[in-house]
Amino acid sequence: MTKFAVGTVVAMTTLAGCSTSGDLVDPLASWNDGATKQSIVEFVESVTDVASPAFVDPAERIAVFDNDGTLWSERPIYFQLQFAMDRVRALADEHPEWATQQPFQAVLENDQEALLAGGMRGLLDLVMATHSGMTTVEFEAIVGEWLGTARHPRFDRPYNELVFQPMLELLAYLRANEFKTFIVSGGGIEFMRPWTEQVYGIPPEQVIGSSIKVEFEIADGEPVLRRLPELDFFDDKAGKPIAINKFIGRRPIAAFGNSDGDLQMLQWTAAGSGASLQVLIHHTDETREWSYDRNSHVGRLDEAWDIAVDRGWTVVDIQNDWNRIYPFDQLKQ
Amino acid sequence: MTKFAVGTVVAMTTLAGCSTSGDLVDPLASWNDGATKQSIVEFVESVTDVASPAFVDPAERIAVFDNDGTLWSERPIYFQLQFAMDRVRALADEHPEWATQQPFQAVLENDQEALLAGGMRGLLDLVMATHSGMTTVEFEAIVGEWLGTARHPRFDRPYNELVFQPMLELLAYLRANEFKTFIVSGGGIEFMRPWTEQVYGIPPEQVIGSSIKVEFEIADGEPVLRRLPELDFFDDKAGKPIAINKFIGRRPIAAFGNSDGDLQMLQWTAAGSGASLQVLIHHTDETREWSYDRNSHVGRLDEAWDIAVDRGWTVVDIQNDWNRIYPFDQLKQ
Repeated sequence: MTKFAVGTVVAMTTLAGCSTSGDLVDPLASWNDGATKQSIVEFVESVTDVASPAFVDPAERIAVFDNDGTLWSERPIYFQLQFAMDRVRALADEHPEWATQQPFQAVLENDQEALLAGGMRGLLDLVMATHSGMTTVEFEAIVGEWLGTARHPRFDRPYNELVFQPMLELLAYLRANEFKTFIVSGGGIEFMRPWTEQVYGIPPEQVIGSSIKVEFEIADGEPVLRRLPELDFFDDKAGKPIAINKFIGRRPIAAFGNSDGDLQMLQWTAAGSGASLQVLIHHTDETREWSYDRNSHVGRLDEAWDIAVDRGWTVVDIQNDWNRIYPFDQLKQ
Repeated sequence: MTKFAVGTVVAMTTLAGCSTSGDLVDPLASWNDGATKQSIVEFVESVTDVASPAFVDPAERIAVFDNDGTLWSERPIYFQLQFAMDRVRALADEHPEWATQQPFQAVLENDQEALLAGGMRGLLDLVMATHSGMTTVEFEAIVGEWLGTARHPRFDRPYNELVFQPMLELLAYLRANEFKTFIVSGGGIEFMRPWTEQVYGIPPEQVIGSSIKVEFEIADGEPVLRRLPELDFFDDKAGKPIAINKFIGRRPIAAFGNSDGDLQMLQWTAAGSGASLQVLIHHTDETREWSYDRNSHVGRLDEAWDIAVDRGWTVVDIQNDWNRIYPFDQLKQ
């Protein structure tokens, strides 16, 4: 990858200003002490230490995060799928044909099994069909309205409160160490952008995801981008390194995921010439969140888990490694 | 577009630290005083002044720049086309079939007219055909080697020394005022990224352009991205606002171009709800650079020029507005 020299003065100033070792407040307070936390902290300290052979110029400190199951929960179903289902119900009166047409019928009849039978691609097709027709500006307003009104069935809170407190801390910790943090998600890019800056501190231009095609048109004298019911790019599995190359153009040095859909992104990151970090989140806490892995219909973690163990990547065990799941959880004593 | 509150303290600190009015050194020294320069400076001062109704949060200060003809020259032919032609000559021995196959034959016979007859799309097809087969890492090395050895026929200098000094100053001036600067070019995204950070101060992740498809594969146990001879996205005309929406996800408040291919990007920027700036570079200096507009086969400026005049956009007259073209030019006295 491209290497550009960065002034040592800048790097040293930053280290002095942002290094966390010795600070009184632990920037990763929701992470229990242990091997997992240690692997993350040791990596960050090594690549930010100008005296270390693993030192990485700040410009090259790219960290990529999957979203569903990595930064926020994805149960009982992907939150964007819930949004799509809510949209189907809201628009059903305008679409009488949906009553006998899949996957809409499944939604209107609350037939979750029929819906999930189509797999991730089928779910995205539903998303595409219910997310098009309007302009990009209109869609952003629809997402914002849904987030302001919809509530998660288990926790009775807005969906974007179900973000992982330890990951929020990790994002902030990386940025304090001059990492640039990106989302690389299978979810829809325009479903995430309206809220990622406020919730994760990740601005729209650092959010990568699946997309549908849009068309430029002049409507009533004003240019608009109209969303079309056609897949543009599916940002999952091999699509993730492809999207990273297209959007970022540098190889990340740290990658965080939770499912087989993140495997290629982690492999791509691991294949860089310098130090790198690969982390998988393993959902192991049925009480505080959910527990699932090899046989899950959502966020399946199977092949990537085996490879992670084989290669010595960091695997987060939520039950053991996180003393707090959501921002609204109390800290364990 | 999404609006996020930014602390007033941050904004005011920045203004104190980065405002250029009153400084002894003119940050736009290569721009002659006059209406053109004034329109740019007044815009920047208004959107960065917290007391101004036109004030824009730093996070929303997105500026987009076309590359060919806007940041560097594009004559006698697009520099990337020159690169492609040099590649054809370098690889001709391995491809005897090119001797009788267009557009390769035209290149090998130096038949520029036959080559240009295919138009921009035909030229890009040539680029695609000669830019594929290798991995992304290999391609980056090829671009770097070419830039280090090829010389522009008129100026006998590396191609990326033919960048516009006034635009380099403008990029730095905008960034000093907390703008985030992006390239949005019809040129190939991976042809620009190896050198834009060094030359323009624009990092790879802020470079948007045309792309060919790539494929993820595991070769000899290592993941690589292999470049395929197939167009992925053509970032010109309506493609520019579409790419801006996809890559950046915010509407720019300033857009700079030089041809009809930039019109939709300028229209999209102008349609924002707040203050915005649209600038077209008009090539009027045959002596120091080139002079061309409505009838040019490269960088045609016709419809966009009429609309710019009609809407009162800023049109830069290179001969009158720039006292220096390239970094290697002497300042006029």
